[in-house]
Amino acid sequence: MAYELHYWPMIQGRGEFVRLALEAAGAAYVDVARRDDDEGGIEPMLARLSDSEFPRPPFAPPFLRDGDRVIGQTAAILLYLAPKLGLVGQDETDRIWTHQIQLTIEDVVDEAHDTHHPVGVGLYYEDQKPEALRRAEDFRKHRIPKFFAWFERVLDSNGSGWLVGRSTTYADLSLFQLVEGLSYAFPIATHRALGRTPRVASLRDAVRGIPRVATYLASGRRIPFNEDGIFRRYPELDG
Amino acid sequence: MAYELHYWPMIQGRGEFVRLALEAAGAAYVDVARRDDDEGGIEPMLARLSDSEFPRPPFAPPFLRDGDRVIGQTAAILLYLAPKLGLVGQDETDRIWTHQIQLTIEDVVDEAHDTHHPVGVGLYYEDQKPEALRRAEDFRKHRIPKFFAWFERVLDSNGSGWLVGRSTTYADLSLFQLVEGLSYAFPIATHRALGRTPRVASLRDAVRGIPRVATYLASGRRIPFNEDGIFRRYPELDG
Repeated sequence: MAYELHYWPMIQGRGEFVRLALEAAGAAYVDVARRDDDEGGIEPMLARLSDSEFPRPPFAPPFLRDGDRVIGQTAAILLYLAPKLGLVGQDETDRIWTHQIQLTIEDVVDEAHDTHHPVGVGLYYEDQKPEALRRAEDFRKHRIPKFFAWFERVLDSNGSGWLVGRSTTYADLSLFQLVEGLSYAFPIATHRALGRTPRVASLRDAVRGIPRVATYLASGRRIPFNEDGIFRRYPELDG
Repeated sequence: MAYELHYWPMIQGRGEFVRLALEAAGAAYVDVARRDDDEGGIEPMLARLSDSEFPRPPFAPPFLRDGDRVIGQTAAILLYLAPKLGLVGQDETDRIWTHQIQLTIEDVVDEAHDTHHPVGVGLYYEDQKPEALRRAEDFRKHRIPKFFAWFERVLDSNGSGWLVGRSTTYADLSLFQLVEGLSYAFPIATHRALGRTPRVASLRDAVRGIPRVATYLASGRRIPFNEDGIFRRYPELDG
């Protein structure tokens, strides 16, 4: 049976890390909230979220349904899926390490989100713009370079061009997505950072060139970046 | 050989979730940065963090050293430790679910931190107080109740008094720590929320009553909450 991914249909957001894993593996899946028939849309997704029939309910999208199992939290979904999709090594040490990298990528994602919503998620960007300018400057100057330097060190140490072992893992797909998102939101700062971390830039290119990923990126299934997602292009926040 | 935990010695912070697991299991461990002999302190911790001999370096504290393995990221450390400490079920489904709860708890921890540092970690609280007031109000009114309601639902659904299965997991210890931290930082709002989520309150009491946990909490090893940690008591942010 196909995996059922539940996530907001108008943005890449956190769900994109799961979509990328499913697409890269060629897995059969349904993107429930993007279906326009009777079984699709946001309402069935929200109904399932509050469905008391689920003894182990997710807190929020994204969540994945696999038969009678429902799993929320991006990193937990990938922890569950990756062995089935062949996107992580067999060795437990490799699995924990891959997960550790994923969690670190998600920390950057959180910080990227906070650049445009430092004061509160419930407020408009326009109502927190001075704070966003301050926070984005710190993110560009200190955080992006620090995180990228860590990924570069990991790639350098591993030596294969991939983050873990000798083949693609979900951590590689996620780092690709992070770099793509940051390149959209902060093109100047990200270009500068990538100039100092050539292995991170090469990994981005390598993932982009994976045939299934390339097909996905060129398809209508890949939602374009936009200003409702995590990575938003507000030129005043870049530099 | 004893586990070696590396974390800032002056705060509970994220390291406390690992300390609690080690303490509750009665595991032998060294809190490296809190030792005052030649092998302890912050400097050896930071030296290890930047040590190029580690092929798989952690990004930041906390990190755990177990022989030749070094693991960073709180949730990844617990994922690694819990099976060895008997703090998670044998079943893979239970393990993913326990991890999903841990990740959700960490989301609350992140949000609690951002109430006093909404604009930037590098700035003083005093320089972002108006923003902190706005963000804390949203956190108290909407986020704490929403998260607590989810934990309550999980406890209600499971029915044993613990979050997963019939015995204590690291998710229980972490939820205890979260409730303790929020009770310190937002005593009024947390008391109000707990009044509506009696199972969460009972879990907090149950963990507090675990003999090894009680011993730990009464010991000098438990660092008191303070205004350098994640959970800070700024009375103006409560209400």
